[in-house]
Formats: sequence, C-alpha cells, structure tokens
Amino acid sequence: MNTFTVRAYGAESTTADLKEMNIERREATPNDVEIEILYCGVCHSDLHTARNDWGGTIYPAVPGHEIVGRITKVGSDVSKFKVGDLAGVGCIVDSCGTCESCKHDLEQYCLNGFTGTYNGKDKHLGGHTFGGYSQKVVVDSNHVLKVPENLDLAAVAPLLCAGITTWSPLKHWNVGPNSKVAVVGLGGLGHMAIKLAKGLGAEVTLFSRTPGKAEDAKQLGADHVVISTEQSEMDSVKGKFDVIIDTVPYVHDVNPYITTLNISGTLVIVGYLGGLEPILNTVPMIMGRKSVAGSVIGGIAETQEMLDFCGEHNIVSEIETIKMNEINEAYERMLKSDVKYRFVIDMQSL
Amino acid sequence: MNTFTVRAYGAESTTADLKEMNIERREATPNDVEIEILYCGVCHSDLHTARNDWGGTIYPAVPGHEIVGRITKVGSDVSKFKVGDLAGVGCIVDSCGTCESCKHDLEQYCLNGFTGTYNGKDKHLGGHTFGGYSQKVVVDSNHVLKVPENLDLAAVAPLLCAGITTWSPLKHWNVGPNSKVAVVGLGGLGHMAIKLAKGLGAEVTLFSRTPGKAEDAKQLGADHVVISTEQSEMDSVKGKFDVIIDTVPYVHDVNPYITTLNISGTLVIVGYLGGLEPILNTVPMIMGRKSVAGSVIGGIAETQEMLDFCGEHNIVSEIETIKMNEINEAYERMLKSDVKYRFVIDMQSL
Ligand SMILES: [Zn+2]
Ligand SMILES: [Zn+2]
Ligand SMILES: [Zn+2]
Ligand SMILES: [Zn+2]
Repeated sequence: MNTFTVRAYGAESTTADLKEMNIERREATPNDVEIEILYCGVCHSDLHTARNDWGGTIYPAVPGHEIVGRITKVGSDVSKFKVGDLAGVGCIVDSCGTCESCKHDLEQYCLNGFTGTYNGKDKHLGGHTFGGYSQKVVVDSNHVLKVPENLDLAAVAPLLCAGITTWSPLKHWNVGPNSKVAVVGLGGLGHMAIKLAKGLGAEVTLFSRTPGKAEDAKQLGADHVVISTEQSEMDSVKGKFDVIIDTVPYVHDVNPYITTLNISGTLVIVGYLGGLEPILNTVPMIMGRKSVAGSVIGGIAETQEMLDFCGEHNIVSEIETIKMNEINEAYERMLKSDVKYRFVIDMQSL
Repeated sequence: MNTFTVRAYGAESTTADLKEMNIERREATPNDVEIEILYCGVCHSDLHTARNDWGGTIYPAVPGHEIVGRITKVGSDVSKFKVGDLAGVGCIVDSCGTCESCKHDLEQYCLNGFTGTYNGKDKHLGGHTFGGYSQKVVVDSNHVLKVPENLDLAAVAPLLCAGITTWSPLKHWNVGPNSKVAVVGLGGLGHMAIKLAKGLGAEVTLFSRTPGKAEDAKQLGADHVVISTEQSEMDSVKGKFDVIIDTVPYVHDVNPYITTLNISGTLVIVGYLGGLEPILNTVPMIMGRKSVAGSVIGGIAETQEMLDFCGEHNIVSEIETIKMNEINEAYERMLKSDVKYRFVIDMQSL
C-alpha cells in the first residue's frame, strides 16, 4: 500500500517529552478521505497514552482524537464528502460494521473492538494508528463527521471526544426540556455536559467540592451549583435529579449523589475507570429504583447528531489555543487542572 | 373509630414463637373493603420482621403481605368491589396519593412513605398495622387488587409480593419476546422471575451455584441453566443478557454477572439490601453502557396488570400449603431454603 510522509508530534517512550517526528499515512483508498488537520483538542487520554499510564501504549505514540480539518482528497467511492469540506474525526476511525453494536450505530461498543484514532491496530498499514497531532490524517469516510460551517472551528474540536462523551448518556437517558440534570466535576467533560444538557432544555446543576467554581458554572449555563461537601446543600437536592453525569476521573464516593437522584433516576459514570469505593449501598437504589451506569464516547451517527445540534444551538467548547510545541507544558497544566476547559492545538503551528 | 376483634397469629417479642392472639380491625369506612382471608403467603420479610432482624419491629407483630381472600363488606363509596368478590392485598395498604410517585402509580416509591401491610403506621387506629396472618383485614379499596377467578387461589397469594417484585423490573426494563433474561437465585422471587419472564416471551436463563437445580428450573420454564461457579459456563454467556434479575438475599459478587450483560443491559437487584462487596468495577459498565439498578415490589396498577396477565397465562406460584400452627416450623425450613418455592397458609386453619 502506498504511503506518504507527514509531520507529527509524539512521544518516543514513556518518559520522553513529545517532539516533532515523521509518520506515514496511507494514500486514500476508494472509501477514504484525506484530511488536512486544522485543530486538534487535547484530551486527558492523550496524556495518559503518551505516558503509558494505562499500559498498552505502543511507541512512537502520536495522540489526538479531537480532530477538525478540511478534506484534501476523497476516495473514488466516497459520495458524502468533497474536497474542501470541513471534517471531524473523533476517537473511532474504524469498526467492524457487522456486529450487533455496529448494526445499531453503536460503534463505540463494537463487539470486535473499534479502531482507536491512536494506539489502535491499523488495519491498512499494520502497526498502530497515529492520532491528530499531525498535519494530515486518512480515515474511512464512514467514520468521518461533517462539521457545521458556522462554528469556531478550534472550539469545535473538543466536541469530538468531550462533547460526545457527555451527549451520548444525556440522549440515551432521555434528557429533554423537563429533565433535571446534575453534573459532577467541572473539567473538559463537565463543562460540555453543562452546555449540552442546557442546550437540550434541562435544568442543570453542578456539583462542586469548592465554592470557587460557581460563577464559571453559571456562565456556562448551570442553573444551580451545589457544594457537595456541605451536607445542608446536599440535603436541599435530595431526590431531585433524573440524570447525573459523573465526570470525576478518580475514585470517589458516589453514594451521596445517589441520594440526590429522583425515583427511577440514573447516575452515569463517564470519567472513572476502576472499583467503586467506598462500596455502593443498594438500599437507596432499591428503595428508589435508581441505577448506576457507565457510558463511553458515542457512535458515529450520534456524534453527527450532536455536531448538527451544536451548529443549530451555537454550542462549542471553552478552549485555550496553544501551539504544537507548547504541548508538553500543556500536559503539566492539565495535571493541575489549570485549563478552562480544554487545550486545542492550532495545527498550523506544526 | 369502631373496631371488631379477629383472631390472628403473631410474635410477642424478638425471640418468641408466633402464636394465636386477638387483634382489632377497624369497621370499614366508606372507602374500605373488609376481606375474609383465605390464604396468606409466607415471605422472608415476615420472618425478618417477626424476629426484628432489621430493627424497627413493633410488637405484637402479625406478619403476612401476600393475602388472597373474599370481600365480606364494602364501604358506601366503593364501586370497584362487591361483597363476594375475590380480593388480593400485597405489601402496601395505603399511600399518600398526592406525591409525584403516587400520581404516577408508583405507590411503592411514595415520597411520604407507603403504609406497609404490617408494622406500618396505622392512619386509622393509631399504632401499627397487622398483616395477613389473621381472619380478616380491612383495607382502603384503592389498595386492593382484583384476583382472577380461574387460578388456584392459594398459589395466587405469593404473586402479591414475590410476583410483583420480579414483574415490576421485568416491565420497567422492557422485557418482551425478543429479550434475553437471566435470573440469579432460585427461591420464592427467583422462581417467579423465571415464570413471569417466560410468560412475557423472553428467553430465560437461571444462574445457579449448584447443578442440582437445573431440572427444577427447566420445569419452571427456564431455557438454560448456567452454573455460576464454572468459569467455562460463565464465559459461554458473556455479553448475552438484556436484563438480569438478581434475587440473592445476601451479599455476593455481582461483577461476574455484569460481564454476562449485553451492551446497554441492566442488572436489577431485588433481594439484597446492603453494600456491594466485592466492589463494583466500572470498567465493564462504561465499556458496555451497562447498569446496576435496584427495584422494590411494584405499584397497585402494575400489580393488577400482573394479576390479569397471570390469569390470562395461567401463571401461579409453586407452593407448599401449611396450617397456621405450622408457621414456626415453616420459618425454620425457610432459613434452610427447604421449600419449593413458597409456603402459603390455609387461613381456614386459624
Ligand atoms: Zn478523549
Ligand atoms: Zn462492530
Ligand atoms: Zn414480601
Ligand atoms: Zn405518595
């Protein structure tokens, strides 16, 4: 298979800073589109993959799965896109297309495993996939999104991961104009959850451990802020919420939030992979038909639905734009939660 | 308020055997019906209440919330029933009727607390309510069920608690002809879950720790039995079930069952009140949009729906009929799981 060389930014090892490197991209096959990358959002997964925090990283690692760009080539069988169109690529660049999940537009749960945008198994070239910290990417057109022309393109990028990760559970658990939604945690995911739930018409509350975030949360659209460390504030929202989107990325006690769920309500964990400690008490769950659930990103059709919705409702992420060579510093700031709320790389700087 | 005396069977203290006693029932008010009790099922809650295993028991305690009888009086405002009708009473004899739960036929989740059939706060006489181990009961007619004439009345009794406790989650989580349902545990609840899920058209699997129950489960309608202690058997049902009804009444590891849920599947705990140990792992939940939920009994309208369904589909509980004075022995046998699958008291024996 023919390839071409593009500049990229990646890590050579667990401990190395990210630096400029060259990688190979395949020439577009009949089903592919080639995309010149304009902006790439910086997700916590990028950092964890670059540093092999979860194990399994294959080096060199080129992160980035919040990609917005412009199409520079279309394969002969592609009718959905033309050269010059805006395009988005999220966390999924391929999936089997034939399993029960894929048949139901749930590529994120592909039973044969979807191909991650980076550190996935490259079906075309062998080896592993390289993400959006690069000049160009070539992707199967069925896994490429149309991007609304009316939005700030840099601020669209985080919709491709942070946006869809919160949109998917909001939609699956039927959030709409009569819903009361709470969001736990105000980071990249949390700020999108507030904006999207508000866009869907819900009454939105942020749970925060510190009073300092109240003003910001309200500017993002939150109707209320509840300080989760104040028992009186927690008591005031007992039994209130239909859906809670829990974006906290580390182990934490979910039991206090369960008591704030309405009858038949659901707390959806999207940020924390691991064991629920302290242990989950079934009593309030049984006595109120409450659920604890998990959810990961979203399917391709659902991602398109979200982008269209964001175009109509003028919803984008709050971002700080950086140059490619500022990525290592950005990672350090992310570890200190020193970003409101997502870094986005201007890829012209590469 | 005028009362009359009826014979009952109850416990005078935590350690006392149940014995015959007299209790007072109110004269039927305009909204009440008076019921001569024909059969009363024996639920594990009866035993735990009689012995104060959960705390909060008020003595004397007269258990029994699986009541089938015949109406002997109707209040002047009652149009739904007439003298001579069959009637059923389950776990709920009153509720506020005005809260959001009650307004949505979810009396089991009454935000002001429903009145339990026994050991509840008696709104009419003060003191606490007495259950179905008695000759007669007087109940608000809105909390009384119609009982199909075509069923074995003794075997109908357990539908009022064990039946509705499993029916409600099956319906809430949309079990139907295309569903794959698993049931954990084969006792009073479990055997009803199998029958009702099968009646709803689902493919039904029993999880059991021991091979000995396979034949029985299949006779009850289970399509498959999976021995949960055999890893190869568990692996064979990985990702299979849409809904799992977990009836196990003691602490147990639910993580292995989560792996047998299909994408977007739900495990519903109906038997165990307490902390989930070992701790619940969010990884398979997030990676498959899976839920862990709880559910308790069911609402009045839903209980009527279930009884009508059982009438149409000829579904009743598997029972062993006992005399009233055999109740203490029955409790001992229940503690050893020595009953297939529910004791029912022939109340003529009182
Ligand atoms: Zn991401
Ligand atoms: Zn697939
Ligand atoms: Zn019961
Ligand atoms: Zn109520």
